[in-house]
Amino acid sequence: MEIIRNPERASWKTILTRPAQDASSLRETVEYIFKEVQQQGDRAVRQFTEKYDGIRQENLLVSGEDFERADNEVDENLKQAIQAARLNIELFHQKQKSSVIRVETAPGVECWQEKKPIEKVGLYIPGGSAPLFSTVLMLAIPARIAGCQEIILCTPPLADGSIHPAILYTARLCGINVVYKAGGIQAIAAMTWGTTSIPAVYKIFGPGNQYVTAAKQRASLQGVAIDMPAGPSELLVMADATADPAFVAADLLSQAEHGPDSQVILVTTCPELPDLVAAEVEKQLAELPRKEIAAKAMENSKLVSIEKAEDAIQLVNDYAPEHLIIVCEEEAYYLRHLRNAGSVFLGAYSPESAGDYASGTNHTLPTNGYARQYSGVNLDSFLKSITFQRISKSGLANIGPTIEIMAAAEGLTGHKNAVSLRMKRIQDDSRY
Amino acid sequence: MEIIRNPERASWKTILTRPAQDASSLRETVEYIFKEVQQQGDRAVRQFTEKYDGIRQENLLVSGEDFERADNEVDENLKQAIQAARLNIELFHQKQKSSVIRVETAPGVECWQEKKPIEKVGLYIPGGSAPLFSTVLMLAIPARIAGCQEIILCTPPLADGSIHPAILYTARLCGINVVYKAGGIQAIAAMTWGTTSIPAVYKIFGPGNQYVTAAKQRASLQGVAIDMPAGPSELLVMADATADPAFVAADLLSQAEHGPDSQVILVTTCPELPDLVAAEVEKQLAELPRKEIAAKAMENSKLVSIEKAEDAIQLVNDYAPEHLIIVCEEEAYYLRHLRNAGSVFLGAYSPESAGDYASGTNHTLPTNGYARQYSGVNLDSFLKSITFQRISKSGLANIGPTIEIMAAAEGLTGHKNAVSLRMKRIQDDSRY
Repeated sequence: MEIIRNPERASWKTILTRPAQDASSLRETVEYIFKEVQQQGDRAVRQFTEKYDGIRQENLLVSGEDFERADNEVDENLKQAIQAARLNIELFHQKQKSSVIRVETAPGVECWQEKKPIEKVGLYIPGGSAPLFSTVLMLAIPARIAGCQEIILCTPPLADGSIHPAILYTARLCGINVVYKAGGIQAIAAMTWGTTSIPAVYKIFGPGNQYVTAAKQRASLQGVAIDMPAGPSELLVMADATADPAFVAADLLSQAEHGPDSQVILVTTCPELPDLVAAEVEKQLAELPRKEIAAKAMENSKLVSIEKAEDAIQLVNDYAPEHLIIVCEEEAYYLRHLRNAGSVFLGAYSPESAGDYASGTNHTLPTNGYARQYSGVNLDSFLKSITFQRISKSGLANIGPTIEIMAAAEGLTGHKNAVSLRMKRIQDDSRY
Repeated sequence: MEIIRNPERASWKTILTRPAQDASSLRETVEYIFKEVQQQGDRAVRQFTEKYDGIRQENLLVSGEDFERADNEVDENLKQAIQAARLNIELFHQKQKSSVIRVETAPGVECWQEKKPIEKVGLYIPGGSAPLFSTVLMLAIPARIAGCQEIILCTPPLADGSIHPAILYTARLCGINVVYKAGGIQAIAAMTWGTTSIPAVYKIFGPGNQYVTAAKQRASLQGVAIDMPAGPSELLVMADATADPAFVAADLLSQAEHGPDSQVILVTTCPELPDLVAAEVEKQLAELPRKEIAAKAMENSKLVSIEKAEDAIQLVNDYAPEHLIIVCEEEAYYLRHLRNAGSVFLGAYSPESAGDYASGTNHTLPTNGYARQYSGVNLDSFLKSITFQRISKSGLANIGPTIEIMAAAEGLTGHKNAVSLRMKRIQDDSRY
């Protein structure tokens, strides 16, 4: 942990620099695996799964028996917790449904906008040290509410070739019955090209390591949409003297344990807080099972004290954190001036982990400063909007001359003709 | 024009195939120009402008005098037309404003979603044969309504080094005063990296040729968001026997004149319509100033008659047209089953050119089948949504155990601790 006091504005950029995420070195690997999967289909998927996950498997599709077994293996308490979380997440995402927007922009010119589900979506759930069944909730629930017709899920197999039961249980609970044992670049490639087993999809969602991120970017060059580019998880805590150092330390550590490249930052207007938090971090860190990972992430963490709230919020906006906790008496001031963040947690009893699991908000959020321009996953991520218009004869008589003048000025006579022909017909008709 | 009658379903894919848009051959050029602009800044932008546009220029920024001159040069009728169009477009995009979405997902757990403007956006207006001032309206109006703080516009200079006066007039009318004389890959690279003259932006909008599209995709690898990948313009007309062949022909030609690679398709349940439309196309084509371009596009066009409405709408959904005109008695049937399209025009008096200019809907739309997963540009394109939550002590007491169980099951003890610590505090507090 580095404690920084009243840094000059010129140094902010350096302080806030994230570890470089240059995917260009991975591009060759991604290109190669994409080409193989395009040409060899399932065979290539199996081959790379053997190479990278060490698993040989004939059938990529998870069977009904696998689902049954998972159902038996998941602890009853965990099932109830997942169901409780599901209800809250459903409530919040249901509420995001929007109705048709309709305007008569000019007499006889009716325009509207309507959202429709993306028909085929692919959800990616990473493997690795933690079985992220919570991410299944975060992706499957809005996909179902949106009404996507075909929802598939890809996730890498465990060392014994199976999928973690909690992932399968959660998938089925959310109505996802099509799960493939495939991960990494090969899974993203399969959902891009389609193979005999794994269908191509129109949009791919989900977090992943740098390989998965590079693969999703490659998919987007192929015309497959992606939710957002993903990076290591981040938390910025904005706190004043009212904050409890133990709570702040626990929140920083909860992000730090994600991975050694996780980013955690404290910004505070209270000069004493950094030392108090640092002491609490040391204390709590010792008892964490993932203390080595967390300690590594904490090495790069910054505890910044800054005098004025005005500068503090500017720094927050410059950083554009994925997660932002605000524990300040002047909370309203910060909220009013907040411009960039993925998800915001207010007050002493809103830990970031609430949003990770059960409060209802989505945890698939923009990292790496992308909160400047990307939304976290939400209901709209699974929809596209279509515009409609119906113009009556009198409506066209109203706006026709405008169209004719503009089309002519752009040199597009064909565009003008499509109107003129109709305008003439309207005039002819009105004569009789 | 190829007339196809009752094609077998197996042949649809071939019929609907778009000309290949493989940008991979451009990647080297794009990579080179991006690197030069990153390293040399304005100097590289000037150099490539000289190379590709044949213009040497010192100052990339359009001056106040340039704006004044443009204002004097634009015809009064055109000004009035642009103003009329602006009002309708404003009305439609204003209406897309959404309010904060707020839910108490569990007692004491308040979650909400709020949209904020993307602070820095770049609008790209292509050069080429037509001065697309209409596209300035389509991008600048929603950007202003969204409240984007910094809106810049890049467009390539004409042969005399100036920008078309209608583009400058429209930009200023919409409140855009920062316009750069830069186009092509170098403009997109400048907005990605930032140069001394041209600031870096968070999201780039606008149509363009294959070079611009490849450059935008390159920008997205750098973390700059883009509106959507662009391709040649398209129109599909879905018509029955009630459609007027002259109107249909005029609409097809209006799209065909965009470029030789434009895609126009007629799908009809009326077996006689294709021949009638083909005859009308021949007649009208002869009188178009851009007849060579349009004729070339019409060569690749397909006029498809298909017996059942059920199959027809399936074909439309498979194609996912950028623009869709429906002139059918059973319009309601088609609307009910429509799943993929960018913008839809209903009835005989709703020509596609109305949406290009003045009805109010946006004309920056997904081509190349991207209507399956992308929305056209709309107000939300200039916003990102942020989620918020405030959890009270009793709220955390409610959902805390759920979070603890799930975090433990994912092996993330730090996440659990952040809750447990607070739960313990709540219990301790309640004891006294």
